[in-house]
Amino acid sequence: METTDANGVNGTHPVHSFSPKLSSVPQGDFIRHSRKTNGSGVQADDTRICVVMVGLPARGKSLIAQKAVRYLHWLSIKAKVFNVGQYRRTATPNPSAEFFDTSNPEGERLRRAAAEAAVADMVKWFKERQGLIAFLDATNSTKDRRRWIQERCDQDNIETLFVESKCDDEDLIMSNILEVKTTSPDYVGQDPEVAAQDFRNRIRNYEKVYQTIDEDESDLTYVKLINVGHQVIINRIQDYLQSRVVYYLMNLHIKPRSIWLSRHGESNFNLSGQIGGDADISERGELYARRLPELVAQSAGDTKLTIWTSTLKRTIQTARFLPFEKLEWKALDELDSGVCDGMTYGEIEEKYPEDFKARDDDKYNYRYLGGESYRDVVIRLEPIIMELERSENILIVTHQAILRCIYAYFMNVPQERSPWMEVPLHTLIKLTPKAYKTEEERMPAKIPAVSTFREKGSSAKHQEKEEGGD
Amino acid sequence: METTDANGVNGTHPVHSFSPKLSSVPQGDFIRHSRKTNGSGVQADDTRICVVMVGLPARGKSLIAQKAVRYLHWLSIKAKVFNVGQYRRTATPNPSAEFFDTSNPEGERLRRAAAEAAVADMVKWFKERQGLIAFLDATNSTKDRRRWIQERCDQDNIETLFVESKCDDEDLIMSNILEVKTTSPDYVGQDPEVAAQDFRNRIRNYEKVYQTIDEDESDLTYVKLINVGHQVIINRIQDYLQSRVVYYLMNLHIKPRSIWLSRHGESNFNLSGQIGGDADISERGELYARRLPELVAQSAGDTKLTIWTSTLKRTIQTARFLPFEKLEWKALDELDSGVCDGMTYGEIEEKYPEDFKARDDDKYNYRYLGGESYRDVVIRLEPIIMELERSENILIVTHQAILRCIYAYFMNVPQERSPWMEVPLHTLIKLTPKAYKTEEERMPAKIPAVSTFREKGSSAKHQEKEEGGD
Repeated sequence: METTDANGVNGTHPVHSFSPKLSSVPQGDFIRHSRKTNGSGVQADDTRICVVMVGLPARGKSLIAQKAVRYLHWLSIKAKVFNVGQYRRTATPNPSAEFFDTSNPEGERLRRAAAEAAVADMVKWFKERQGLIAFLDATNSTKDRRRWIQERCDQDNIETLFVESKCDDEDLIMSNILEVKTTSPDYVGQDPEVAAQDFRNRIRNYEKVYQTIDEDESDLTYVKLINVGHQVIINRIQDYLQSRVVYYLMNLHIKPRSIWLSRHGESNFNLSGQIGGDADISERGELYARRLPELVAQSAGDTKLTIWTSTLKRTIQTARFLPFEKLEWKALDELDSGVCDGMTYGEIEEKYPEDFKARDDDKYNYRYLGGESYRDVVIRLEPIIMELERSENILIVTHQAILRCIYAYFMNVPQERSPWMEVPLHTLIKLTPKAYKTEEERMPAKIPAVSTFREKGSSAKHQEKEEGGD
Repeated sequence: METTDANGVNGTHPVHSFSPKLSSVPQGDFIRHSRKTNGSGVQADDTRICVVMVGLPARGKSLIAQKAVRYLHWLSIKAKVFNVGQYRRTATPNPSAEFFDTSNPEGERLRRAAAEAAVADMVKWFKERQGLIAFLDATNSTKDRRRWIQERCDQDNIETLFVESKCDDEDLIMSNILEVKTTSPDYVGQDPEVAAQDFRNRIRNYEKVYQTIDEDESDLTYVKLINVGHQVIINRIQDYLQSRVVYYLMNLHIKPRSIWLSRHGESNFNLSGQIGGDADISERGELYARRLPELVAQSAGDTKLTIWTSTLKRTIQTARFLPFEKLEWKALDELDSGVCDGMTYGEIEEKYPEDFKARDDDKYNYRYLGGESYRDVVIRLEPIIMELERSENILIVTHQAILRCIYAYFMNVPQERSPWMEVPLHTLIKLTPKAYKTEEERMPAKIPAVSTFREKGSSAKHQEKEEGGD
């Protein structure tokens, strides 16, 4: 197949006076890459975006940046957080609140030096083509500082997208202070009460000089997130990738909640070692379906859940005794194994030996003939993830490959590992997103089932029982 | 297959004080419906959204509402515009500017009566379950009027989403006045100059009382579009469907531009009557590829285009002489004909007679075994449409079924008709979106090719030569 001679040019369209939004020309590596996907995701080859976080301490800036990076990685877009605090800490490991007083010239000089070091590293990172999107995580609380960053990025053809988190909800700020900041490296080994008090003083020092993004900066591309999810102001979004990041940020909320995951109960195809299909659950699968409501009640207590299943019988049958509203998603159907649908791994190895090997070599990217790859599944799951971010307590009953992809998003599992993760049958998984990690709990129902986990290189009969293209 | 017992409940989750965004429970009809799709699109069964347009005359409100309805119809979401002006015109067909003077009590009474009639019809429309999203198209320029609408909708459990178009760009307003308003039913048969002057006076009368949406209305769900695409303010978006509408509105621009569409040149599979595959273009296809740059130059002049192709050889070969940047999209690949890939229609009719008939009965929804339906294609084209809305001048070289879907979006072709449209080989199509319609021009290259158009019920050899699952 021919390749295009697409060379990256971005933002070269004429800009009409009445609509200053630039239109990017999407193309290049990112596209050639996306041949393996369902076609979502386009961006100029040479796009580099510096997302500049803006906001007082304890406004969730680091959390937002880290979530966005996790989301982008899941979509195979390379991104990285450059945390200015970490650069500052190499010089000043345990600063007191006075350090952050703007009338302290030594503190100001050191903080500026830390920002410069972070930006320099970021520029280097872009130049080495290590990624497309960098998050500059710092308060960036003055117009001068933001202008300096923008001009610095302009020099190297790096787009800037300012993301301000504004929050005046005292409860939210306090919970952020208590949950995050007292575990900060700045306060290692200190009394949490003393640390929280010092941190509140540090915030006061920033408040003195804080300037929100306003009309003076209307030439900037920015998003203001006001009380996370309540109100969003979007200014001069320039291209596809920016609009995707903004859409993700728009949908975030920070209400406490959990997500429960379960595979369907053991199916008749699991028993016969066939993949794909639309089989009923087995007798043991039926036992799991009947046990599931009790298991869920133990884990979720009185919390009202919503149940999402695929459109395939085995997930609907498994969820049918749960006393909650249920929703069927085509996007949660098992990975499509194409021409191999209904075969055992032994049959696939015999009939398509080269494919079988190719899949083991790069399982994430391998697309079954007439079917899907894990990469394809991630693309079709993207609206599910977006809806999960918008939602509260959800229990998903789905299939092995789908569960691996959803799990990989929340647990930040790299692509080379996610298709090989073991997700046993008859086990309820509870994920609880916290500030910097997602907590996990696994509750086995203690009802026997075949193992459907297949190790790399194996096609042994009873290790192979995956129910849908694993 | 079992169906779920999902009964619509919306917005019943507890609302935490620090994050007033409601999370909807997506389910129900819309979902059962979407079994035929790739799973995008979820919404509570009983969701009803009234999108209330807000803005002075000549701010593009009607245009925005009509585009959004077209987009939603294309996604199989029933929507309708209720234009208050049309209700008012039944009572007052040709009002002068004085009619719109707020100190004219008779005018005010009649305009209020028109708004009430439109809202009453809308409520009836929702009650008859005729659709999910209504657009109330009027200036709705005062807080009182907006509060009245919101309370009226609350009574019937209809969500409100206010969409304000604010614009202070005089050029944009004037072009809107000239292009749209002098063709308005209010000015039928009048001198355009006089009509434009009268219309400017009408705007002055609205300006006297106009109130933009502000902090007093922070409890409302709203979007403010400032100079279409420049800045967007989003407040309290509540659920998936609202967020989709908002994302679409965010991406609109109104710069003048055209979109060019072409099928690939005739392929070797076209000649042999096979569908699908990844064949090379034929000799005559090659002639078309060499003629295409000239054809494009005649139509586009000096305009700089960007070329989008699929990842299949026949589109890349066809586009290769065009002197523009090129971009390959997996999402533009031909409709996947699954197990029928590489067959002729005669073979399909023989091997899968029932499927062949089922496809004729409901071609839009028919999904090839292991392949796709037109409905599936629309879902995967959605990011393409979004990117087209964001872009300027694009030439797309793609396949028959894909072209039909893209064409249906711009030309508002209903689903029962779009899969049967004739889109000949070796013809360049130019679409130019205007205020209330899209203009079309077809330029045949006058290079012979087989016809790949297949009439309902036919499998005749030379009518059947579609190149990819038609």
